[in-house]
Order: sequence, then structure tokens, then C-alpha cells
Amino acid sequence: MSKHIFVIGAGRSATDLIEYLLNQATINDWYVTVGDMSLTLAAEKINGHPRGKAIYFDGGSADMRQEFIAQADIVVSLLPPAMHPAVAKVCLQYEKHLVTASYISAEMASFNEEAKEKGLIFLNELGADPGIDHLNVMRGLDKLRADGAKILELRSFCGSLIAPESNNNLWGYKFTWSPMNVIVAGQGAASYLKDGKRKLIPYNRLFTTTDKVVVEGLGEFEAYANRDSYGYIDTYQLEGIQTLLRGTLRQTGYCEGWNAFIRLGMTANDYKIADAETLTYKAWTESFLTLQAGESVEMALARFLDTEIDSDLMKRLLSTGILSEEKIKQENATPAEILYDLLLSRWVFLETDKDMLVMADKIVYEKEGNRYEKTATMAVIGRDHEHTAISQTVGLPAAMGVKLILQGKINHTGVLMPIYPEIYQPILSELEEFGIVFSEKTIAL
Amino acid sequence: MSKHIFVIGAGRSATDLIEYLLNQATINDWYVTVGDMSLTLAAEKINGHPRGKAIYFDGGSADMRQEFIAQADIVVSLLPPAMHPAVAKVCLQYEKHLVTASYISAEMASFNEEAKEKGLIFLNELGADPGIDHLNVMRGLDKLRADGAKILELRSFCGSLIAPESNNNLWGYKFTWSPMNVIVAGQGAASYLKDGKRKLIPYNRLFTTTDKVVVEGLGEFEAYANRDSYGYIDTYQLEGIQTLLRGTLRQTGYCEGWNAFIRLGMTANDYKIADAETLTYKAWTESFLTLQAGESVEMALARFLDTEIDSDLMKRLLSTGILSEEKIKQENATPAEILYDLLLSRWVFLETDKDMLVMADKIVYEKEGNRYEKTATMAVIGRDHEHTAISQTVGLPAAMGVKLILQGKINHTGVLMPIYPEIYQPILSELEEFGIVFSEKTIAL
Repeated sequence: MSKHIFVIGAGRSATDLIEYLLNQATINDWYVTVGDMSLTLAAEKINGHPRGKAIYFDGGSADMRQEFIAQADIVVSLLPPAMHPAVAKVCLQYEKHLVTASYISAEMASFNEEAKEKGLIFLNELGADPGIDHLNVMRGLDKLRADGAKILELRSFCGSLIAPESNNNLWGYKFTWSPMNVIVAGQGAASYLKDGKRKLIPYNRLFTTTDKVVVEGLGEFEAYANRDSYGYIDTYQLEGIQTLLRGTLRQTGYCEGWNAFIRLGMTANDYKIADAETLTYKAWTESFLTLQAGESVEMALARFLDTEIDSDLMKRLLSTGILSEEKIKQENATPAEILYDLLLSRWVFLETDKDMLVMADKIVYEKEGNRYEKTATMAVIGRDHEHTAISQTVGLPAAMGVKLILQGKINHTGVLMPIYPEIYQPILSELEEFGIVFSEKTIAL
Repeated sequence: MSKHIFVIGAGRSATDLIEYLLNQATINDWYVTVGDMSLTLAAEKINGHPRGKAIYFDGGSADMRQEFIAQADIVVSLLPPAMHPAVAKVCLQYEKHLVTASYISAEMASFNEEAKEKGLIFLNELGADPGIDHLNVMRGLDKLRADGAKILELRSFCGSLIAPESNNNLWGYKFTWSPMNVIVAGQGAASYLKDGKRKLIPYNRLFTTTDKVVVEGLGEFEAYANRDSYGYIDTYQLEGIQTLLRGTLRQTGYCEGWNAFIRLGMTANDYKIADAETLTYKAWTESFLTLQAGESVEMALARFLDTEIDSDLMKRLLSTGILSEEKIKQENATPAEILYDLLLSRWVFLETDKDMLVMADKIVYEKEGNRYEKTATMAVIGRDHEHTAISQTVGLPAAMGVKLILQGKINHTGVLMPIYPEIYQPILSELEEFGIVFSEKTIAL
């Protein structure tokens, strides 16, 4: 019997997901409905495909959730993470499977028992990161464990960056992905495991506590720690492991620059500057500094940062326009919102730009008394501005997850992560057909 | 006709307020009702006075607010600041005056028009700080301006500290006042005026950007900036002033120590540590550090802080028990909550201890071509554990404000601060009878 897939969200990360599902629609006998607040956007993605349908869908409307989820066999939610639980509840009500590319929230986790009882699969964290990283890490760990290795350390990194050919600003960064998340990244604290002990890195030290990560063919990157690595000890079944860190990759120099924003106070999102629109960016920057007699704002900034006025750090900071005489455009805005607006105008991901998703994981293990380090790296460059690396790496795994569920190939039920061989093996194999391939190297330590 | 005063709250800061109102009850022909969640506490404060009445009162109950505010002529709210608006609304409904010792919130400010229309006085910021500082600063400014002086700079400081005779820990600090407020003090950013420009100090630099403040007879203190000094340019009518800073006083060394807690990450209040109760304080501290081979937690802490292992800073930090083998008592707690619980057990304000409130303001002005600095300082030591300095300095001004309102001596209406001569002159004069006296000194610069 024909199956019906309901994809909620037709934004940037949906392109490759929808294309994959439509391309495989006839052979698998399924139909794809795409709902979005923009009917035009949804229709563009369907592109007249006979097995596709575009609808206007407002995820915030309880009536619409009821109406369209009831008609589907499986739902893919690309909504903002906070909206997944509302979708999941309707999936429970009508007994529909669910796929997301987002971290499992406490509320999503709470649906586990009921989903199990009803034989439903709520498969989450199946995008790029979280997603492909889980698939490759679990494949690597399971294989090593089957071979009798003892796992000592795991470090797993991912970055949504810009392709070398489009990398033409001093930060090696453009907004290919949720800019506000980049501005407030790391607020709170990062938690990871080091030498058998839990470590906490507060925000004020996050961007100075970085790892160097070399990816063959692409050179050296730096990585800052993700919010919660510690919780993955259980997820990856790594009891007894000494070090476990998940981190975010950036081009070298980015973290030092970003830390300057943090030290200055420009990323704070917990208070508003009432009359921000009366200030230039330069005056705003000056407000975080104390000028000495005869000193320019630029000199005071260099002194504050304990760097030379023509250092790379200063060049990087000035390239963002923080000393420009432009007026701030927002009223009553937080520093983070002001910085967001400024960087949005500087770090533009142009139509002609290509993005790049880079992934690397390192496993240190012991076998027969010897120590080894196995490194797996992967880089995907966007095909074009529509089929970006992020769209491919988020959308394809999620789409393949949908296929596995509809083909009845997943035996687990409940609220799941893609950590089981029945999920990671077929998806990693199929991703290779799309050029998403890890290269591996093992060295003796 | 007899007047009825309704005092909401019988806690530590209410003692002197209630005593004052009861002592003056017969001569002024008024009655005092004290409501508190603890009827016992309220009854203790009334102490059988014939013109006093203790009642059980739950500020969160709309019914009780209606019942008891309707019966009063004036209300004094010593509730937590967030609860004042609910009280103020009932005061508007039944047309009652209101006195608080708290900062005017945006919601409280929004009642100004209606209070004015109804001829009501909502007098706020009339405690110690905010309160006595406003009184003395406005008296000083008004006098200087009347003498033709041009005001160039104003710095105003206050600290709720411990009396020299009870000052026997390395921080010069015990919790005489709202401990959680001390733990999270300064989160967000501080805003002040310097050399004619607004300055912002983010939390990560607040406790290293301190002023030295000398108070005659008590020596040198250090001060960190309060959240919003900038807004007081309007309040104090200081358009054109070059520098305006309000700050909090601490004993020397406190700020360096507190900044270490901030750098470590121990004051964060925006994430929880799920299994905190499984950790000792030492293990918790270690989680913020990276130990090198062979290094103890103490050595790693000293290295992190770039200080000697036997430095005053280290002694100060270790005196709090952050390296103790005691288990943390809370589950699923934020770092700030964990630190709170630890310090609460170390910085105990004992029955035998006396507190001390210290205030200092400095006005730099120009007159006939010359520059001067006028300094006013004041220190009050608690009489005993009940009649603390904080109870006296918060309660007496508020009580005197009640008297002025009931005697019809305040001509202004609406939501007010005590910045008018008709308020500050009589209260400052009467405070002198209670030993709350500023000593002044002016020097030529």
C-alpha cells in the first residue's frame, strides 16, 4: 500500500531531503507532502513532481497539526527544535512515526515509553551534527570493540564552514547556518570528560580552551567544546572511557577573535541597550573600553586586547566594522543582537559562494598491549547555493532514516538516536553514493 | 482621625521600621498592622504594643491583598521587589499611599499617571541603598548648585558589610543580607558615565574594574559598579556631568577573590549539574580545572589563577571550602546554587556578630574657576543581631517617609524617589538623632 510522508519545513536544509524522497517515491510507492509557512517555497521544492504536494502549513497551529499529521504515515519535522514536542504529541495520538535532525530534548525523551508501547519510531539526531557524526563514531566504536579493543579516548568534531574557494574573509567564516546560534554559541557551559573526570568550561574560557584538529587535504582547524559531551558516555556505551569530547570546528584565528568579542562584552544577550539606535558601532565599541588621554578607540582596543595595533587579531576584528561610523539599526537591543546585525551584513553567504561541512573523529584505543589512534575525516562541499553541504548532510541522512522506517528495517522502537547497526550501516553505505565518504587512518601511539 | 499603617513583611529589615512606627503611634494617632507569612514573627515585632496588630498575611494571595489593603491608609511593602506591583495595583484600586525600599521597576513606573490622578504617593527607593544615598547625594547636589557650582563628577558607594569587631574571615564579608543576590551580583552588565560617555562593563570584567574608596576611620575599601548608574543622570538632574558611578563597597581583596569564582565558572546560574550530589566540593572545583601530570587540584588552581600556592588569594579561596572533601548537598543545581550553599555555611552572620553599613559619596565640582572634591561618608554599626545596621538604615528612612506622607508634608504625587528637599531634609535631620550622620570634607583639587 502507498505510504504518505509529511515533511514539515521547506527551508534551506530541506532541499536535498525532499529531492531524495521524491526521486525514490515511485520505486518505493510513497507520496511526499511538504508543508511550510511559505507555500511558494514548498512548491519550489516539490517542483511539479507527480508524487509531491505542497501545502501551506503553520506549525504553530494545533488544528493544522491535527489535520495533516493524521493523513501521513510518517512525519519529518524540520521545525525549530522547541516545536518538535508539539508535533510528537500528535504523532503519538495518531500513531505516526517521526524523524528529526535535532538533539533529543528532555520533553522529547519523555515520550519514549508511550512511543514504545505503540510500536512507534521517533528517530532523532539524524542530520549532519548531530547525525552523521553518531553514525560514523558508532560504526568505528562497534568495530573496534568487536575486535577486542579497549576504547580510551574519543574526540568528535564538526564544523559548518565555507569552501576554500569562497573563503575570502579574515575569519574563514560566513553564515551558512542559523546566525543567532553562532552569536550566542557556548553561553552556559561546556561539559566533557577528560582523564576520567568530568570537566566544565565556562563561557568566559570556552574560546581559549581549543583543540587543534588536522584534516588531511584541508589543513589545521581549531575546535571549541560543544555544550554536552559528558552525556554521550551513556549514548555511545563508553563507560570507563578516559576522554570524551564533542566540538565545533572553526578556521584558525576565529576563536581568538570571537573571544575578544566575549571579553569586550559584545555577545551578552541578557540585557538591552535602550537607545542603541543613537550610537555608531564605533561608539558602541568605545562604551566597552576606557580610553586613556590622547588615545584613539583603536589604540584602546589594542591595549585592552594586549596586542599590536596591526596584529592579525586587530585586522580580524576591524574587518567586522566594529569601529565603523555606521549607526546601529536596532532600538533597545542586546549586545548579541547588535553584533548579529553587524556580522550579518559582513559575513554574507553569497549566491556564488559554496559552503563546506567538515567532520573529524579520533578514537584512541588499546589492543593487545599497544595503543593506537584511529582518525576518520570527511568534508563535503556544497554543489551550489541550493544544494549546500549543510542541506545534503542534514537532509540525506534524515531522508534515508525515513526510508529505513517505511521499509520496516528498524527493529527498535521509542525515542531513538541513530546508534544501532541496522541504522548506521545502510545510511553510511548509501551516503557514499552521494560522495559523503570518510577516509580513515590508524597510527600506533 | 486615626490613621492605619499596614506593613507587609516582618523579616530582618522590618525591626527598626516597626519599632519606629509603634514608638510614634500614640503621638501621631496611628495604628500599625504587621502582616507576614509567619504570624509568630509578626507578633514578635509588635511585642504586645496596644496600637499594634500582627496578622497572618500571604502576599501571594489576591484575596488577602484586597482585604487588608482596603482597611489601611498607607501600605509599606517589604516584600521581594517582584511582588510590589501586585500590591501597588490594590493601592490604586482603594486609593492608598505606598512606601517601598526597592528600585522602581518598569511596571511600578507605569503606575505614575494613575497614582497622580488619584493624588496618591508611591514613594520608593527609600531604604539604605537605594535610599539614604539618594537623600545625601541630592542634599549635596542641591546645595552646591544653589551656590553656583558646576557639578563635574559624582561617585556614590554603599556596602552592607560586617563591623570591624566581627570581621574575622579572609573576605571581610558575611551574609547580613540576601545571600543569593550576592552570589549572582553583577550578572548582565554595569552601565555608567565616564568622561561624558556611557561605559558598559560586562560581568567578566566587573570585579577587576574596581575603584578604591577611603572612608575616614575605617580605611580603604574597593567598589565595583552597580548595574545602572547611567539612568541616574536624569534622576539627579545632572545633564552635562562628566562621570557618574554608583557602586558597591567590599573589603580589599574581596573583588579579586570573587573574580576567581567568576573565572572558574562557579557563579554561573544558567545551567544545572544533574548529579551534583555525587561530587565533593573538591571534585566540583577540579571539574573547572585541567590538571597537569602529578599536579594536585590546589596546584592547578594556583597555576590557573597565576598566583603562588600560599598567596592571600589562594588562602582566601581555600577558606571557603572549595577544596573540601564534603559532599555537595544539592541535586541538579546550578554552580551559583552550589556556591551559595557552600558560602552560606562559611560566611555565617552569627548571633554575636554585628553588621556595618558604609556609605560614601564624592562630588567633584567647579566654582569660580576652581575645582573641588566634596566627600561625605557615613558608617552605622548594628546595635545587636536584631537591630542590625541594615535594619536601621533600610527601616528608619522608610518609616520616616510614612510619617511625612501621613502628616501631609509631601507635595509631590505619583511614583516617586526621595529626591525632593521636602523629603530628604526632614529625613536626614531625623536620621541624625539615630546616629546616622554623614561627615563631610571638601578639598581643592
